[in-house]
Amino acid sequence: MSKLVIVGTVAFDAIETPFGKTEKILGGAATYIGLAAAKFNVDGVIVSVVGGDFPEEYIHMLADKGMNIDGLEIVEDGKTFFWSGKYHNDMNSRDTLATELNVLADFNPKVPTAYQDSEVVMLGNLHPLVQLSVIEQMSDSKLIVLDTMNFWMDNTLDELMQVIAKVDVITINDEEARQLTGEYSLVVAAQKIMAMGPRYVVIKKGEHGALLFHDDDIFYAPALPLEEVFDPTGAGDTFAGGFCGYLAKTGDYSYENMKNAIIYGAALASFTVEKFGTERLFELSKKEMHRRLQQFKNLTQFDIELT
Amino acid sequence: MSKLVIVGTVAFDAIETPFGKTEKILGGAATYIGLAAAKFNVDGVIVSVVGGDFPEEYIHMLADKGMNIDGLEIVEDGKTFFWSGKYHNDMNSRDTLATELNVLADFNPKVPTAYQDSEVVMLGNLHPLVQLSVIEQMSDSKLIVLDTMNFWMDNTLDELMQVIAKVDVITINDEEARQLTGEYSLVVAAQKIMAMGPRYVVIKKGEHGALLFHDDDIFYAPALPLEEVFDPTGAGDTFAGGFCGYLAKTGDYSYENMKNAIIYGAALASFTVEKFGTERLFELSKKEMHRRLQQFKNLTQFDIELT
Repeated sequence: MSKLVIVGTVAFDAIETPFGKTEKILGGAATYIGLAAAKFNVDGVIVSVVGGDFPEEYIHMLADKGMNIDGLEIVEDGKTFFWSGKYHNDMNSRDTLATELNVLADFNPKVPTAYQDSEVVMLGNLHPLVQLSVIEQMSDSKLIVLDTMNFWMDNTLDELMQVIAKVDVITINDEEARQLTGEYSLVVAAQKIMAMGPRYVVIKKGEHGALLFHDDDIFYAPALPLEEVFDPTGAGDTFAGGFCGYLAKTGDYSYENMKNAIIYGAALASFTVEKFGTERLFELSKKEMHRRLQQFKNLTQFDIELT
Repeated sequence: MSKLVIVGTVAFDAIETPFGKTEKILGGAATYIGLAAAKFNVDGVIVSVVGGDFPEEYIHMLADKGMNIDGLEIVEDGKTFFWSGKYHNDMNSRDTLATELNVLADFNPKVPTAYQDSEVVMLGNLHPLVQLSVIEQMSDSKLIVLDTMNFWMDNTLDELMQVIAKVDVITINDEEARQLTGEYSLVVAAQKIMAMGPRYVVIKKGEHGALLFHDDDIFYAPALPLEEVFDPTGAGDTFAGGFCGYLAKTGDYSYENMKNAIIYGAALASFTVEKFGTERLFELSKKEMHRRLQQFKNLTQFDIELT
């Protein structure tokens, strides 16, 4: 088992979907990533920042799930990052109602000494310079995974390209892959992104699953077809958390094992969308996880003999 | 091996894509279905109608591939069905430029006596009453597969519902499934369609693959991620042809075998889109087919041990 560093937001979210709306609840990329990775009992640390308004109860909840929180800075006189969004009826698009950076504006990530030799680093969606700073603190990383989004392509492309050049895996959604490369075909886009640095490219297609590219190989993890998506918030981060958590647990960073890792990511993400926020991840049992993996097998495995 | 009846259009198509445009070329649902099914060397008959303007050469081309053409009526003083369309840049949508029904307007399908006891019937996209007439001519069918489209939902819904009630499998695209049921979730839509008659529902999602539903089971066949889609015309019909051709060849209509059938359908469809019209299907070799099935295995098969 390898150690895992997770950097990303720990935040308040307020979410509205056709099924209802929440007050400020626990959210943030690092939260979802950490909760998902914790399913594998890895030795992981969350590197993030919150304000004095962040409930101790939330911090305990993360710690109780097994995440080390020595890298979680608390700025007592600051306010926690806040995001608010409203999903449209088809759940595939949303409007951002509010983004208050607060303590995130001056975030200077510090990877605790005990984790600077971690093999796996998960860079959750954040300013590229923050991600770069984390990379520079690592002494012995074997697998650096980057998540990012179109906002950084629009506003800090040069810095983002520096990060992309230094990572092993990038996870990105289909529209972002097209924006980053100017290519409509995801196959061509993935090839261009690999030329920018990463040996592995994961393209997330929401309800249509995710593609893993490596050299000329492609692997496809479907999203589980669901009767109902209740709240998509955090699905991509949960996916990333399952992915890096499984890889840290196994310490096997081969392409073959990465296939398993994205299936785990997809399986965990399929739970997150069933309830608001992190609720479903918190209550998720091993038995449920096991059953869902079986569903993924049933969904994809076939038996054509090629002779 | 079971006998196979294929009813559908045999037509002229004129196609425009971002890559070029064609004159009137060979097209039609039954043509693609027949060419795809012929890959399995099944004993299949094409039931359709063309005009006196239809080149004998095209008829020979179909016969040469092993399709029986005794059910292909030629109306000497009539004109062949003609469709013309132009694809948009993203290849996911198109404008129909012309639809000339011609001899199709009075089509009265006749299943040759020797094929009235066929086990497998593929009802290509046509007026529901024509499809119904074919069903009534069959004496011993074991598997009736229906393809249809939104045009018939808009204009002949009552007749379409009669057909849907009599078939074993329906193939339909995602938007059509939503239209037919008023449900956004494809899982819920499929359940509602099964309640209308079919025991199996195949929902086609274009570049996002296809889902097979049966009772509470779901199987997913991805579309092969391609560098370039040259011409999507006929992809859905090729899929249907691979599906029913494989089932007729094996004579095994179980859910397990249907998984293999939709993988074959997806694999064949991935060739059709590589060139204009039927060109790629005509030249396709066994070796290429074999290689592509291996790509589908590589794309989807993983190795998580559930203990």
